[in-house]
Amino acid sequence: MTITELIERKRDGGRLTELDIAWLIGSYTRGEIPDYQMSALLMAVYFNGLDDGELGAWTEAMLHSGDVLDLSQVTGPKVDKHSTGGVGDKVSIPLAPMVAACGAVVPMISGRGLGHTGGTLDKLESIPGFTTTIAPGDFNRLIAEHGVALAGQSDTLVPADRLLYALRDVTGTVPSIPLIASSITSKKLAEGLDALVLDVKVGRGAFMKDVEDARRLAETMVRIGQAHNTRFVALLTDMDHPLGREVGNANEIAESIEVLRGRGPQDLVELVQRIGGEMLMLGGLAADPEEARQQLVACVDSGAAITKFEEIIEAQGGDPAVLDDPKRLPRPGNVHVLAAPRPGYVAACDALAVGRAGVRLGAGRARKEDDIDRAVGFTILAKPGDPIEAGEPLARIGYNDEARLRAALEVLETAWEIVDEPPEAAPLVIEEVR
Amino acid sequence: MTITELIERKRDGGRLTELDIAWLIGSYTRGEIPDYQMSALLMAVYFNGLDDGELGAWTEAMLHSGDVLDLSQVTGPKVDKHSTGGVGDKVSIPLAPMVAACGAVVPMISGRGLGHTGGTLDKLESIPGFTTTIAPGDFNRLIAEHGVALAGQSDTLVPADRLLYALRDVTGTVPSIPLIASSITSKKLAEGLDALVLDVKVGRGAFMKDVEDARRLAETMVRIGQAHNTRFVALLTDMDHPLGREVGNANEIAESIEVLRGRGPQDLVELVQRIGGEMLMLGGLAADPEEARQQLVACVDSGAAITKFEEIIEAQGGDPAVLDDPKRLPRPGNVHVLAAPRPGYVAACDALAVGRAGVRLGAGRARKEDDIDRAVGFTILAKPGDPIEAGEPLARIGYNDEARLRAALEVLETAWEIVDEPPEAAPLVIEEVR
Repeated sequence: MTITELIERKRDGGRLTELDIAWLIGSYTRGEIPDYQMSALLMAVYFNGLDDGELGAWTEAMLHSGDVLDLSQVTGPKVDKHSTGGVGDKVSIPLAPMVAACGAVVPMISGRGLGHTGGTLDKLESIPGFTTTIAPGDFNRLIAEHGVALAGQSDTLVPADRLLYALRDVTGTVPSIPLIASSITSKKLAEGLDALVLDVKVGRGAFMKDVEDARRLAETMVRIGQAHNTRFVALLTDMDHPLGREVGNANEIAESIEVLRGRGPQDLVELVQRIGGEMLMLGGLAADPEEARQQLVACVDSGAAITKFEEIIEAQGGDPAVLDDPKRLPRPGNVHVLAAPRPGYVAACDALAVGRAGVRLGAGRARKEDDIDRAVGFTILAKPGDPIEAGEPLARIGYNDEARLRAALEVLETAWEIVDEPPEAAPLVIEEVR
Repeated sequence: MTITELIERKRDGGRLTELDIAWLIGSYTRGEIPDYQMSALLMAVYFNGLDDGELGAWTEAMLHSGDVLDLSQVTGPKVDKHSTGGVGDKVSIPLAPMVAACGAVVPMISGRGLGHTGGTLDKLESIPGFTTTIAPGDFNRLIAEHGVALAGQSDTLVPADRLLYALRDVTGTVPSIPLIASSITSKKLAEGLDALVLDVKVGRGAFMKDVEDARRLAETMVRIGQAHNTRFVALLTDMDHPLGREVGNANEIAESIEVLRGRGPQDLVELVQRIGGEMLMLGGLAADPEEARQQLVACVDSGAAITKFEEIIEAQGGDPAVLDDPKRLPRPGNVHVLAAPRPGYVAACDALAVGRAGVRLGAGRARKEDDIDRAVGFTILAKPGDPIEAGEPLARIGYNDEARLRAALEVLETAWEIVDEPPEAAPLVIEEVR
């Protein structure tokens, strides 16, 4: 078996065997296959895909390219969620303490923001002192003690994905459904989960622009879960518009605290409850959606959810005083208000434009190596469906640099569409795949 | 403009501009684009192709990646031929002196054998002392003095092709018609030609297994010639069976000498005359096929052709005594005769099997770095259409190593198909594209 033969076979629409794939991923991870051959193979996969058997083997080989967490000593159902990335998507932050407060074990490994989408780790690090860099042994200890941890991926977990992702990023091979699906699921399976809820974003601000692609990705991932005897449920959710009202790192922590206090915006609360409900049901902690929702509401009302978040912040070195005094979060030096140019109803607030404006403002990264400013961001004051008068605020912008503000406004101003008649409301959860 | 953008555009079926392609090929040749990005782009080209405009720009960029021969000081039409490679295809060797003897200038740059196909340089080097490594200045001098030279490609001619070919070879991106067409034509255009005859081989022993692919390649190359104001004619010729009777390096030199003496086998002589005729007509040295053929026959009959070959051999350091005494060529230590297992008519002599057997015998290379034995080879004694009795010889095998002989026979024995009824003769020249 040579790599050239495997490239040619995949190029010609043939099948790679389980052994071929195990050899391929293992050899590549050990540096025994050069990048120029792997990138040609990835492009052939882009064009010819991977069937279910190939994809199962590919995911399995990625999963076993490094360490796999062993949480067998921890009692309770291990459940997690993964979002394909959006704008204003801070769901994980209130969700993890809520679900943990209801009795689930949540070993949540998250990522950083890139391009117009934000990242959970970047947001959490706006809490003074909070660290997301946790050694594998410490991660297990946190899970055992608190039932939840929010961490970045360690170098020893799925190293094949880190290498492959870096290569895909510069070779035009990112948008391949089997490659996306194996990248996501191998990392989540390495957490040693019993079940996973996948939030597959669809729309202008999402990686998947249309429902058909999102459905294919969701179905592909659910089949990988079945092949690994792990219960996966996928929700296709709207990402035409930002989720909630806050976009930016400290901004989204403040809004997450509001959710944990029972005061979050309606769309964000709905999605947290829906994903949390699926997690509780998959974990055997609730019998049906209504029971799950009541548990989640109760843990907010009782204060158990915010107490769990306080526990997480303390355990991960952060300052829990931010919970009572959000002014301790990084704050921007200046505020600008963007006003509506005309009266009417908000028909759209383009998540892609808002996300790109966030990168220009400094809240996000254009490239992996860029620094970000955790203090800056947007508060969206006019959401789709809202009536508005000319001159009323569309958004409040916290900024630290005049030039960055101007650059951000150029894009942000294009985000809103204001029409004469009230628009029809679009559903937040478009469909579910299980 | 970034290479990632170009990869994505080609992946998505978009067009690369002339500027994009000039930048791409130039940057890659200077080592400014890494192999892992170029291989992904080549695989995208494999799937989505290059249109005529892109291909013209690609060929032009390759052609100008290094030096271009300037033969403007040499009088006479500069014409050459190129074969896509076959088994027993020694056409270039008698052809070059014949066409040069008729007044054309033939700056022939050839290649080495790889896999089951042989190479003109390897064959010529079986003439004691003959060198094909000629500095660019010496090449021009040879052309000026003798009107013909037979040399390998210098490092300064089309360096982009050398780099791209090495990458394509290990990334499954060789069999792409635009990439093959640009590789062949850029090297030939760098010879500063007025006209070129392309011999596109079709069949079991050829790179192109079917006529449709061969026709597409031929048409693609002819269009590149038009775009470069250089007259290209392509002949699609049969490579189901080896050409002539000799396969192997010294063997094929001996057979080439026979052609120059007017004693070559019918199929080989026919193809040499046909290709040579096209070259003379393209060069304005003959008005029609019959006049061209008569000139070629006359230069053999008069001895002008073999005298020209003698002149080439002397000019390139070889021993011209091989012309009168072919026993001065490398000779094998032993001879084995393969006998027919049954009586009948030869319906097929599979060129691929013969070529593969040649590699096993040591006459050809499995990998570029392999050594070859110029003394060993096959003399095919039963060609398609020949009647045969059981026990009569199919081929005579000259060999130096018993184990290699046995390995070669395993494959060689499968080459012949013997049937009861005389088979229909297939045409040697299948069609022409101009």
